Amino acid sequence: MARKNLFYAQSGGVTAVINATACGVIETAREHKDTIGKVYAGRMGILGALKEELIDTSHESAKDIAALRHTPGGAFGSVRYKLHSLEESAAEYQRLIEVFMAHNIGYFVYNGGGDSMDTANKVAQVGKKMGYDITCVGVPKTVDNDLPETDTCPGFGSVAKYVAVSIKEAGIDVISMPNTKIFILEVMGRHAGWIAAATALAGPRRSEPPHIILFPEVPFDEVRFLELVKENVEKYDNCVIAVSEGLRWPSGRFVSEAGSTDAFGHQQLGGVAPVLAEMIKNRLGYKYHWAVADYLQRSARHIASAVDVEQAYAMGKAAVELALAGSHGEMPIIVRESDEPYKWSVGTVPLEKVANVEKKVPKRFLTPDGFNVTAACRRYLEPLIQGEDYPPYKNGLPHYVKLKNELAPKKLKTQWEPPE
Amino acid sequence: MARKNLFYAQSGGVTAVINATACGVIETAREHKDTIGKVYAGRMGILGALKEELIDTSHESAKDIAALRHTPGGAFGSVRYKLHSLEESAAEYQRLIEVFMAHNIGYFVYNGGGDSMDTANKVAQVGKKMGYDITCVGVPKTVDNDLPETDTCPGFGSVAKYVAVSIKEAGIDVISMPNTKIFILEVMGRHAGWIAAATALAGPRRSEPPHIILFPEVPFDEVRFLELVKENVEKYDNCVIAVSEGLRWPSGRFVSEAGSTDAFGHQQLGGVAPVLAEMIKNRLGYKYHWAVADYLQRSARHIASAVDVEQAYAMGKAAVELALAGSHGEMPIIVRESDEPYKWSVGTVPLEKVANVEKKVPKRFLTPDGFNVTAACRRYLEPLIQGEDYPPYKNGLPHYVKLKNELAPKKLKTQWEPPE
Repeated sequence: MARKNLFYAQSGGVTAVINATACGVIETAREHKDTIGKVYAGRMGILGALKEELIDTSHESAKDIAALRHTPGGAFGSVRYKLHSLEESAAEYQRLIEVFMAHNIGYFVYNGGGDSMDTANKVAQVGKKMGYDITCVGVPKTVDNDLPETDTCPGFGSVAKYVAVSIKEAGIDVISMPNTKIFILEVMGRHAGWIAAATALAGPRRSEPPHIILFPEVPFDEVRFLELVKENVEKYDNCVIAVSEGLRWPSGRFVSEAGSTDAFGHQQLGGVAPVLAEMIKNRLGYKYHWAVADYLQRSARHIASAVDVEQAYAMGKAAVELALAGSHGEMPIIVRESDEPYKWSVGTVPLEKVANVEKKVPKRFLTPDGFNVTAACRRYLEPLIQGEDYPPYKNGLPHYVKLKNELAPKKLKTQWEPPE
Repeated sequence: MARKNLFYAQSGGVTAVINATACGVIETAREHKDTIGKVYAGRMGILGALKEELIDTSHESAKDIAALRHTPGGAFGSVRYKLHSLEESAAEYQRLIEVFMAHNIGYFVYNGGGDSMDTANKVAQVGKKMGYDITCVGVPKTVDNDLPETDTCPGFGSVAKYVAVSIKEAGIDVISMPNTKIFILEVMGRHAGWIAAATALAGPRRSEPPHIILFPEVPFDEVRFLELVKENVEKYDNCVIAVSEGLRWPSGRFVSEAGSTDAFGHQQLGGVAPVLAEMIKNRLGYKYHWAVADYLQRSARHIASAVDVEQAYAMGKAAVELALAGSHGEMPIIVRESDEPYKWSVGTVPLEKVANVEKKVPKRFLTPDGFNVTAACRRYLEPLIQGEDYPPYKNGLPHYVKLKNELAPKKLKTQWEPPE
């Protein structure tokens, strides 16, 4: 088999461990120099391929590539760019194939969420039509944990650990301060409440924070919520709440769009935590504190889950091995063998089963009232935050690698223009 | 010398390392069983003394006391209760002395900020008037780092490390996402900008986050700020901003009170980060993300500074040693011997020099334009975040101790009623 190059791209929101996947891809590719030539990484994800901005990772030292394993963010840049459908914009896919042909790319490894898996599939179809053979595999990634088929998504375990540790620590703070009755932590999760659910790991007992969890899957019941807050404060002297950014009213409107406007008539700034805090203060009069973790949660490599890092790396490695085996249109997944002791293996799934499917927190993981999680949910979540995988430190700060990111010389005469 | 008991209380906002100080106090007292009987801790700070709710720490095992060193929050409860002045409420101080007499307390160790040091002083004066001899010492504590005389305040180094690590990680995230141009992290600091200043440690180069820091010490210049944001985005493709919660307009009004109201006419919820984000979006059109760390920053024992933990413990130990030496009305401080290598020793200062004085970030630590810190400031800050002092983990989460906190039987017939 002729030696071909491999194209790798990071897509969508980045995570604390997506670079561990990149590390797995590149290190594994380097072990197969007979079949895989260079690994080109897309500068800013798929845009890098469209613009023929290919980062030549062969310029990076083995040491720097190894350091990707403990470096958060997307080392080559990511992008939220959704390729149009094949019908709408065949030109986009053709452009990709032209770039791949020009750079002798025979493997396309796409690291992202549900949309990206759909893209990977289409690239191959177009390649075939153009008489160019390219093996496409997907690699799962998303802090939202909403990909189907796989037991979990690399990136999620580390966010889960971050939010559980954070709410545990903040909960201890609140208990120490008798005047503060309410603490609200807003976490990511526009459609799926997995991250909010993970805060439950901070305390298994009803008396321990978080006392209330609010999910995007459960329409917000303000009356019952306020009753519960009051009950918790009366029983435990405080109430710690975790809320998904995607919490919605029964009407479907986001609670973060509180319907309020500022002095200039602008819609009030996002953030569901401050909306709930104000609601509690107005109705119950309790003194509150709130935090919005935003990017801090998904970039917190300093407190990454060792299991998550290991799985992220394993997915990258498996993707290259699948590509080498010619397993076109597949995605490696994490298969849970047992909860306790936690055992997992690497499986595969056809991309079409993953594309555009969103896995939400199922009913059996939520308590009947919808304000907390069940024991089954804890059993599912607990293994995912196990182990600490600390980055090295230098001068008091984590030492994260910054790659050279040198672009390969362009070969095409044409420039790519984004469609409207 | 007759054996006397020691009273210890935690005052004001808690920190990631105030329990390390408690650990230093209790372990040192236990080494002097010939002079110090029991260590009583005030349940909820000084309120515990007023209400005669004294936690008998002799019921806690050596192992649990040792675990305080790695446990955040206030193990005995803290409180924001400011004692009235001696003139206004001599009764309060008399009550304290009565409780101390009843429980044979000869040492009063008060762990807090500027106000607390004033209190410690007054307790002793009243004692003398009432013919009761009590040695009072203060122990510094505050995440705000605003106590004078001491080189730094236990609690600050760990927050400094947390915010520097967090903004470094979030900055890497922002760089990965070409569509996100702005990231704003709001940190604590109502009057002093030390925590905001510490974010600068994340990146020494102008090109590295944070690009702009906003201090309570510098009146907010909106025009110049927006220009700078634009310059940074044009130069570096993004702009990462750290802002103190206490940022004020030239008029003195907090920027967080944006003057806007919600649909019900309520003042808009706090948070200066969302106000700045909205300002940038309206004027410059950039896509933003923002985070408010709130309690997460001061309770983040998982990423505590080893130097801070060591100093917090040393202050507790020194306080007991001062008390034993009869150094009444003193507070141990941290004295910097050299920047590099960082060397420090324990000194002392009279409480009256500390009481009610607030140390702000000095001019020489701020760049002339007031939007960043100087090399001198970095030299000061850098040693304080050195070293990682990880807590032990159990099942994926930090294993923090929860003490028994058993109260000593009451001896007084009278109940204390808070003054109006």
